[in-house]
Amino acid sequence: MNRPVLVIGNRNYSSWSLRPWLLLRQFGVEFDEVRLPLDAPDFAAQALRHSPTGKVPALRDGELAVWDSLAICEYANERWLGGNGWPADLHRRALARAAAAEMHSGFTALRTQLPMNSRRRPDAYRWDAAAQRDIDRVQALWRELRRDHGAGGDFLFGEFGIVDAMFAPVAIRFDGYGVPVDDTVAAYMQALFALPALRQWRQAAEQERERVAATDALCRPA
Amino acid sequence: MNRPVLVIGNRNYSSWSLRPWLLLRQFGVEFDEVRLPLDAPDFAAQALRHSPTGKVPALRDGELAVWDSLAICEYANERWLGGNGWPADLHRRALARAAAAEMHSGFTALRTQLPMNSRRRPDAYRWDAAAQRDIDRVQALWRELRRDHGAGGDFLFGEFGIVDAMFAPVAIRFDGYGVPVDDTVAAYMQALFALPALRQWRQAAEQERERVAATDALCRPA
Ligand SMILES: N[C@@H](CCC(=O)N[C@@H](CS)C(=O)NCC(=O)O)C(=O)O
Ligand SMILES: N[C@@H](CCC(=O)N[C@@H](CS)C(=O)NCC(=O)O)C(=O)O
Repeated sequence: MNRPVLVIGNRNYSSWSLRPWLLLRQFGVEFDEVRLPLDAPDFAAQALRHSPTGKVPALRDGELAVWDSLAICEYANERWLGGNGWPADLHRRALARAAAAEMHSGFTALRTQLPMNSRRRPDAYRWDAAAQRDIDRVQALWRELRRDHGAGGDFLFGEFGIVDAMFAPVAIRFDGYGVPVDDTVAAYMQALFALPALRQWRQAAEQERERVAATDALCRPA
Repeated sequence: MNRPVLVIGNRNYSSWSLRPWLLLRQFGVEFDEVRLPLDAPDFAAQALRHSPTGKVPALRDGELAVWDSLAICEYANERWLGGNGWPADLHRRALARAAAAEMHSGFTALRTQLPMNSRRRPDAYRWDAAAQRDIDRVQALWRELRRDHGAGGDFLFGEFGIVDAMFAPVAIRFDGYGVPVDDTVAAYMQALFALPALRQWRQAAEQERERVAATDALCRPA
């Protein structure tokens, strides 16, 4: 049988791509990969061959082409993970989906002002009050989920799952921009960074040659 | 057993609220309703009593409080709809989730420049090229899904489901702002508007007294 194909952007910059990639890799699903650098002149044309939105990520599984990071995670959950991508308990599953959906549709200021840049190291760059509100909300959510549902593992609902894959790019942002965190949040971030699949992604991001100038420019003090 | 409680905003303006409300009502799930007008001075304080984000919609089901329109639909699907909120076929379900997720995270220009306003009637107001690209993409998606998966009913995958609930506010926008549509798109919009639950929502929106000035101001020619 043909292996599925996941189409992703640059590892250093493509936060949406990281989510399903991390989920599939961490759960041991075998797949082939097509990497399309976001800043390449023919990115849109290439992406449209795999996804009707012309964006990444996209997943090919035989005849099927699924786009959107969250929808790909839901499909993978049914197709390969035997439902283990979400908590087994109905109520916990609802809360995990609410957190994932909040990430998926929200946090615009955080996403715009602290774009994912895996190679980045903290400096004097700072963000505005709206981005700080997003940061505070994410951290409050992580703390609450860990406290109420995190027993039995290091992740938001104990074991690693889709909700953690959805937030992994935020952990990379907090790390690279030097966002202040408390011990609980730091421990959660360390658990994510210790995942073999996420280490592998970040190591490969270090090797990438492409540079997105606008994102890298945020490295300079504002 | 206590009935679940759905917390919504004004019917005239709250596009996110309409989605789970329409799904629950159209599938005959019994629920109580709390309506919080978006422009009320104490909206945030009231909303925070039901939802950690301080936004609507939110669903209370016993001890559980679920926020976010898409997550509420997924929970309702498992809790009350016996899975019938999504297409039964695995591949179709993946495509329906991709379309719903694209709506959930995208179409920013359409959402900003043509905010839902159920009482609105077409006039000379116009939008920019970015909003038109969103409009074109939505319509292309609807046409493609109806053509490939719509046999057996009037909706995107035949019978009404979550994906249609997610797009219902866009149909209201197309109607109220006089967005040009072809016959296929018009037929789909008519199928949505003929749903008893959506008729009921829109009739109640006509009766609401609250006015959100910034949204209503878009009624005047730009
Ligand atoms: N909601 C989509 C967003 C996908 C998205 O915006 N991807 C970015 C890269 S991270 C992209 O392809 N941008 C290129 C473009 O917009 O042309 C998802 O969750 O997959
Ligand atoms: N992604 C959320 C968005 C919810 C949302 O933004 N709701 C709006 C009303 S339609 C709201 O509560 N706005 C009030 C505010 O932001 O303070 C969902 O799908 O439920």
